[in-house]
Amino acid sequence: MISTEVLTRMIMAGQGKEPADLVIKNIGLLDIITGQVTVTDIAIVGDRIVGTHETYEGKVTIDGTGRFAVPGFIDTHLHIESSLVTPHEFDRCVLPYGVTTVLCDPHEIANVLGSEGIQYFLDSAEQTIMDVRINLSSCVPATPFETAGAQLEIEDLLPFRSHHKVVGLAEMMNFPGVLNADPGIMAKLIAYQDGHIDGHAPLLLGLGLNGYLAAGIRTDHEATSAAEAREKLRKGMAILIREGSVSKDLEALAEILDENTSSFVALCTDDRNPLDIAEEGHLDSSIRRLIARGCPLHHVYRAASHSAARIFGLKDRGILGSGYRADIAILDSLEDCRVSDVISAGRLVTPELFDTRNPVAPVGLTSVKAKPIAADAFITEPKPGQNRVPVIGVKPGLILTFREEAALASTDFGLQPDFEEDVIKVAVIERHGKNGNIGRSFVKGFGLKRGAIASSVGHDSHNITVVGATDADMALAVNRLIELGGGFVVANEGQITAELALPIAGLMSPKPFEEVAHDLHILREAAKVLDCVLPEPFLQVAFLALPVIPHLKLTDRGLFDVDKFDFVD
Amino acid sequence: MISTEVLTRMIMAGQGKEPADLVIKNIGLLDIITGQVTVTDIAIVGDRIVGTHETYEGKVTIDGTGRFAVPGFIDTHLHIESSLVTPHEFDRCVLPYGVTTVLCDPHEIANVLGSEGIQYFLDSAEQTIMDVRINLSSCVPATPFETAGAQLEIEDLLPFRSHHKVVGLAEMMNFPGVLNADPGIMAKLIAYQDGHIDGHAPLLLGLGLNGYLAAGIRTDHEATSAAEAREKLRKGMAILIREGSVSKDLEALAEILDENTSSFVALCTDDRNPLDIAEEGHLDSSIRRLIARGCPLHHVYRAASHSAARIFGLKDRGILGSGYRADIAILDSLEDCRVSDVISAGRLVTPELFDTRNPVAPVGLTSVKAKPIAADAFITEPKPGQNRVPVIGVKPGLILTFREEAALASTDFGLQPDFEEDVIKVAVIERHGKNGNIGRSFVKGFGLKRGAIASSVGHDSHNITVVGATDADMALAVNRLIELGGGFVVANEGQITAELALPIAGLMSPKPFEEVAHDLHILREAAKVLDCVLPEPFLQVAFLALPVIPHLKLTDRGLFDVDKFDFVD
Repeated sequence: MISTEVLTRMIMAGQGKEPADLVIKNIGLLDIITGQVTVTDIAIVGDRIVGTHETYEGKVTIDGTGRFAVPGFIDTHLHIESSLVTPHEFDRCVLPYGVTTVLCDPHEIANVLGSEGIQYFLDSAEQTIMDVRINLSSCVPATPFETAGAQLEIEDLLPFRSHHKVVGLAEMMNFPGVLNADPGIMAKLIAYQDGHIDGHAPLLLGLGLNGYLAAGIRTDHEATSAAEAREKLRKGMAILIREGSVSKDLEALAEILDENTSSFVALCTDDRNPLDIAEEGHLDSSIRRLIARGCPLHHVYRAASHSAARIFGLKDRGILGSGYRADIAILDSLEDCRVSDVISAGRLVTPELFDTRNPVAPVGLTSVKAKPIAADAFITEPKPGQNRVPVIGVKPGLILTFREEAALASTDFGLQPDFEEDVIKVAVIERHGKNGNIGRSFVKGFGLKRGAIASSVGHDSHNITVVGATDADMALAVNRLIELGGGFVVANEGQITAELALPIAGLMSPKPFEEVAHDLHILREAAKVLDCVLPEPFLQVAFLALPVIPHLKLTDRGLFDVDKFDFVD
Repeated sequence: MISTEVLTRMIMAGQGKEPADLVIKNIGLLDIITGQVTVTDIAIVGDRIVGTHETYEGKVTIDGTGRFAVPGFIDTHLHIESSLVTPHEFDRCVLPYGVTTVLCDPHEIANVLGSEGIQYFLDSAEQTIMDVRINLSSCVPATPFETAGAQLEIEDLLPFRSHHKVVGLAEMMNFPGVLNADPGIMAKLIAYQDGHIDGHAPLLLGLGLNGYLAAGIRTDHEATSAAEAREKLRKGMAILIREGSVSKDLEALAEILDENTSSFVALCTDDRNPLDIAEEGHLDSSIRRLIARGCPLHHVYRAASHSAARIFGLKDRGILGSGYRADIAILDSLEDCRVSDVISAGRLVTPELFDTRNPVAPVGLTSVKAKPIAADAFITEPKPGQNRVPVIGVKPGLILTFREEAALASTDFGLQPDFEEDVIKVAVIERHGKNGNIGRSFVKGFGLKRGAIASSVGHDSHNITVVGATDADMALAVNRLIELGGGFVVANEGQITAELALPIAGLMSPKPFEEVAHDLHILREAAKVLDCVLPEPFLQVAFLALPVIPHLKLTDRGLFDVDKFDFVD
């Protein structure tokens, strides 16, 4: 709540009757409405812009000469957990790219810890410099085909509903549940009819899409083709163009963003890891590429800011005008979207600014409850009369998998990998202390000739997923992962060759993002030593267990045929 | 609150698994995002669209062949009182023009009755077929230079704040109060920092505008030139293009509405009387004229619907898509915006539909508390040494007045009118039972050679304003007005020649709008018999007492120089 004293100062400084707290002098202000660029001062008091298009004096000034100001970027849908760092480190990592607001869904941590995970994010959001807003995870567990660490019903979500950082209900990914009017889903939909319900409806079109929209769902970040996005737009759905580390839709969707649509389009990353952020940037990268593809410049910046704000009801931001929140990205070039300074709620973002935050105690430090495992746990007996076994086919950069088959030799130690055919073992080990399930199958496409790769990041239930050339290295990697309390581990011929501990719910590191990026680099290199041919092996391991993405997946309960929406046999 | 049963029906009907309640068949649906027109069915369940761009079956069907569907229109700022009829009659009068939502400010009735007037509008809003939303009157009284019937501080407004029909705080017309940070204004601004604060800032530009915007005000309906509107847009203010009976800004502002701006522009009428509605229509008329002036068609319809909805946070409407409120205008022609049918919250608007509303008891039936007056009350003594007296100059169609002077003869009955120079008497009589003030002056431009015209509509305090050629007819008209409990009266040579009783707060008739329009026509004719040269004499009388509009005005406290912002001597 703003005080009378501060609001009075804002009004007076806006009129030039008092100095502003901060003035950006002589900057090229981009009008995201008309596209006009005006060289002007921008005056700020507290967290708010109080004047533009006039000359101002300030207690502190920033020289904007030769640079440009655009509204801070809003990431409309992401999982901070995918950055592998804490919300504090995410803040420090991503805010300097001009991302001043994120709408995050703590879906990953909620699948491990339930309400405790959501509370951790809310506590963190009180501290971050960027404005972290939360959509409440709507689908925990994501499916009934796997063992998650928690289950969240509407009664569990309602206590968070009126928290000032909460926007609405996060991606309603259980679209079959919506279309079938499942009672648990209906309770959540009913409770949020007056609020925001985020969508998630890959490839849902026609009558099915109409039924889904009838539930009051208004946004989608899962469109992967222009035709799909156009149908969704036509039916009144806002399209969030996603460009993450895994799912990359920008190239396909760039053509939908124009002067007609820009108020109905926003940007998001969904899942982006710190290596990609370091190498490519964050939303700035999407903006740069959309402009390079010919989308009208000020409409791209509009989508990245004001449209996002309006779509999600954040009415205090998205325009560089008096009375709006002072979230500003300062650029060296509009076309190239290179961010040189950031103002977040009126504060110039500096390394020291991040030091002003209070720490938030980590949670879920004992969330990996699996017991140490022996190599023989991975022995896979052939089924009687089965000549060929189903194999999960993996392709670089796709979380989509393919249903393949292989004829595998069988020994006293069960079915054997076939390195000639690039078929190796994969297992998913329940790790929430619920039942100790192990799902076993085979995977093709990793290229591994030796060693094993294990991960406690395993969408969406985040059990332990391990792929490997030998049972011994698989067990070694998994057991080291358990010792670490979660993480990524590479084992090779009896040695741990690389590891990254992710002890916060088995999903996040407490370390600085720079160290995590460094460790990821080492992990990639260690995977290459195993002859791994995938550029992002950990991401691809992490999505092997997601039974809502076609076509063949493995959960702790067994091999799952997504097209049939049932287990194999 | 929607029930599980209804939401389930919506989801199922959207998928075509159940018949919809209502289906519009084969209609040309205008996509306000892209401009595309698609011939399709529109399925409706309850108050909600559940399907478009597909074929549907319904329990009831409407043939849309050859016609077009656009989202229902939203009037973003108006005073229902200016229609001179009750909210119920306004509903019946205006909804058939496709206006399915109005954001009204009960400023007029609040100036007479205070909270009781606001409650009357809220009670009426529960009954109307159209969605009547209320912005809470922020400036009652409008100025300290006149006697109003009530005073509303923030404590008086807060009890209404969370009413489901209340949107925010209505037009903050006291912009000097904002810029000076007056305590009463600051209390209102502070209380609505998280809500909507409607603007009203005629000609406010530059640093002053920045100061005003710094208070968190986001909309303006007072821009009267394209240059003014462009500066306001540039600073992030949404522009509501107004076309009323009195203030007509559409011609000047049409050029600002294009594909860049349409999400930041909406339409309003502010004040429109039933004669104009009958002759020209309502928002449909604005739409028609904007299209005729070359504004891109689907951007005009967007401004009239979705942009208005988003600007005011009404996120459930403004697009013809599944999940949105079924507010639909059905047109014979898109270019000409002729409305042939209207769907309001899923219901086809018919005369019978209006019969389903419950009546709301009128209020303020004894609000005209002035005592009968004698002719000598209008005697105006010359001031010693004064050769020429100030005269209020009136021009047809302008609520702006001009400062003129006249040398008037003085007799035993004081200063005399000068019919040669078209100078006649004007008086404003306090009628709220507070002090019995009478303000007296002279006015030029009415053309009256005989008789008198009296009105209890007198913006914004709604005292009795009377102009006349003789003191006797002025007294006759005023006394008849008092007998009627408020209204418009024409007297001529000792006879009442026309009258319209407005007994609800002295502002509104309980009669059907058709009868009120008929009576207004007779009143106009009766004014012509007095040689009145103004086409809208009652509107012009009603604005003679408004001391916030330049240049010279008369309140119950005396002649007011708006430029000096003080009384004349």
